[in-house]
Amino acid sequence: MGKILIQNVDVLTLNENGDVLYRTNIAIAEGKIQSIGAVPAHFEADEVIEASDHVAMPGFFNAHTHAPMTFERGWADDLPFDRWLNERIWVAESALTREDVRWGAYLAAAEMIRAGTIGFADHYFFMDEVAQVVEEAGLRANLAWCVFGMGAETEIGRGLEESIAFVQRWQGAANGRIRTVLGPHSTYACPPDFLVMVAEKAAEFGVGIHIHLSEFREQLESSLAKYGVTPVQFLAQRGILDHPTIAAHCIHITPEDMDILQAKKVNVVQCPNTHMKLGMGVTPVPELLARGVNVALGTDGPASNNDLDMLEEARLATLLQKDHHMDPVILPAELTLRLATQNGAKALGFPESGVIAPGRPADLVLFDFRKPHLRPRHNLLSNILYAAKSPDISHVIVDGRILMKDGELTTLDEERILYEAEQRAFRMVKQDMHIVRAYDLGQRG
Amino acid sequence: MGKILIQNVDVLTLNENGDVLYRTNIAIAEGKIQSIGAVPAHFEADEVIEASDHVAMPGFFNAHTHAPMTFERGWADDLPFDRWLNERIWVAESALTREDVRWGAYLAAAEMIRAGTIGFADHYFFMDEVAQVVEEAGLRANLAWCVFGMGAETEIGRGLEESIAFVQRWQGAANGRIRTVLGPHSTYACPPDFLVMVAEKAAEFGVGIHIHLSEFREQLESSLAKYGVTPVQFLAQRGILDHPTIAAHCIHITPEDMDILQAKKVNVVQCPNTHMKLGMGVTPVPELLARGVNVALGTDGPASNNDLDMLEEARLATLLQKDHHMDPVILPAELTLRLATQNGAKALGFPESGVIAPGRPADLVLFDFRKPHLRPRHNLLSNILYAAKSPDISHVIVDGRILMKDGELTTLDEERILYEAEQRAFRMVKQDMHIVRAYDLGQRG
Repeated sequence: MGKILIQNVDVLTLNENGDVLYRTNIAIAEGKIQSIGAVPAHFEADEVIEASDHVAMPGFFNAHTHAPMTFERGWADDLPFDRWLNERIWVAESALTREDVRWGAYLAAAEMIRAGTIGFADHYFFMDEVAQVVEEAGLRANLAWCVFGMGAETEIGRGLEESIAFVQRWQGAANGRIRTVLGPHSTYACPPDFLVMVAEKAAEFGVGIHIHLSEFREQLESSLAKYGVTPVQFLAQRGILDHPTIAAHCIHITPEDMDILQAKKVNVVQCPNTHMKLGMGVTPVPELLARGVNVALGTDGPASNNDLDMLEEARLATLLQKDHHMDPVILPAELTLRLATQNGAKALGFPESGVIAPGRPADLVLFDFRKPHLRPRHNLLSNILYAAKSPDISHVIVDGRILMKDGELTTLDEERILYEAEQRAFRMVKQDMHIVRAYDLGQRG
Repeated sequence: MGKILIQNVDVLTLNENGDVLYRTNIAIAEGKIQSIGAVPAHFEADEVIEASDHVAMPGFFNAHTHAPMTFERGWADDLPFDRWLNERIWVAESALTREDVRWGAYLAAAEMIRAGTIGFADHYFFMDEVAQVVEEAGLRANLAWCVFGMGAETEIGRGLEESIAFVQRWQGAANGRIRTVLGPHSTYACPPDFLVMVAEKAAEFGVGIHIHLSEFREQLESSLAKYGVTPVQFLAQRGILDHPTIAAHCIHITPEDMDILQAKKVNVVQCPNTHMKLGMGVTPVPELLARGVNVALGTDGPASNNDLDMLEEARLATLLQKDHHMDPVILPAELTLRLATQNGAKALGFPESGVIAPGRPADLVLFDFRKPHLRPRHNLLSNILYAAKSPDISHVIVDGRILMKDGELTTLDEERILYEAEQRAFRMVKQDMHIVRAYDLGQRG
């Protein structure tokens, strides 16, 4: 790993004090931030980034997604949830191949790097493909192979054993950039006995869990009717929450549920864009934060979002709470940016990331502020949260390696990815052939 | 005006049928769309835009803003409304000069062109400055000089007479790209007699009105307590709504109010980002649309938003209604894009704009789809509304003139605007001097 000097840069450190630094320098060596301020004597940079009028901040962590679902972007919009799922998503995914997952993950990786996401918690199928893409792209990830514990293709035991083998193959791979956990789908899609088995295996192999939790009001009502407890209490009773857990959504939860999530140190992930787009409701983020729960943000899959843009999630997170509580003061800018960066890093198992400080991993992004919508610079935090767009990000550095430089991806063949992924996505959903032909001509002709 | 040929472009026409065209050509001459499809014989383009993998759609119309408030971007966030207004906005604006308005409008114009906004309804002070910037930038605008009808600086009569003189100076200027209306601030900031006078002057000079209406619940309650009628009914009684009216916000309105807005053909403007950020509530857009009211979208001023990004407003408009009604089907993509384009055009007095069709004004933008977040192209409407970012816009054409070409502004000196506007904005709010010095060095040193 080479040495990098970022000079004349403004910095949102997101450290404990919330320090904002102006026109300073960041020296990077051995994958870590060596110093901020005066450049160390004898520091010979292999790469100098002149960053006047740029702002550095910790990169984003997407704490819940299904990245290869880029293939279904724009394929299932403005539909009721049951039709979204049954007529579109299941139909498309019934034809899903291992190669589709590979190319869907490539497309997602290119999109995430461009949007300043440096780590993501993925929950999907054929996860070896995703892991290989993460390794090649240079990103961080927390990967879970989704298991149901029922159905013809996913018998109890077999699916889980395969997913444990996946965990063993990839835990700590890519210089520690890859972490793995178990991925039971949810309380409503997994049989109760299967969830107990997942908890036992998590204990046996010392791994965490990534699960969907309390997404729709009907799930809360049906759990109360069937088991007499909420989905959160149902999981707690089965030992699932005794292991480090990423719980996506947590919308329809009670005050008692919040106390459990706090006591069990569960990482709660709100996905504001998806929650709004599918009309799911509002995660009680301020109430959870008040209890000390680690709340992070996620995009969910691009079939419901429709992108992988964490800056947009952060903006929606605060706007949604301000709207919901009719309170312009709630979830202010700095706190919201912490949710999208360091809280996600913690949820994914990279607790050292998410702060720009000496000794921390060199995991950061630069925003190019030479844009009318980013001036004047009265408040860099406000300008980023409330006005910047993800394409304003010019540079992305993960683990001391430059993944995007002046808007150019350095680890991925983007042109090939755009073409291959789109052609495969068209085939997967059997898109109207005159459109496919138009773009085939467009690319080749 | 030269002839322009856009070739190999995909087109969201937003015509009555919602036609989407693939790999076609748009020929532009004399400021109008001459043809779509086969290029007319003997059409000699002065400018050819090769637009493979680009999508054309009508440009955005921002139906309510205070554009020169770019100077206060990021200056007043995460505050209660009364502190936002009294400690920040009024304080900053007490030092506002004619030159500040000029440079604030320049900064806004650069930002709007970059974000694909081709026309805006502005409501502010020193409006001759804004008009000159509009003329130079090549945009369309509907301009209102804000009047209160009370207070030392704005006596009844004098402010209104000046604003009528402004209307007479600029109505129809810049090849018809500038329209003007009267701008009484609101029912709560203007005395009742003054509003009657405004209505009489609107009749006398045959112009429309742009006003704030029913923004906060307290306004509804206080109007009911003081006058026994809602703010909408109060305006209707005083004849204000008998003239073409742009009514910004209309959040706290009754079913009877909606009937009045429909009967009086009022143009209602929702500003979703500002409404969410200041916790103001939700404009009943689906209910208004069901009555046939022309609903458009606006950003409001950059002190409360914090940008002038109509694509973001469109996305928020649908997400907010889906969330509010817990209904993923409401306000689908095509309808939402119509609000942000042709409904705004109609509200501003440019009813021919907002559709890509032969004979219509050449008022359109191109999105560059060579981006991972815009693939696959299953549905171009969905990809633009739910995934695109304003910086994906590469070209902007207004009245047959190219205002942005491959990301370069053609009518404005952007570098100078960024510098001058920021320095003046710092001085206006008396920003912390070490920051001012940092950026002064940054630009000059």
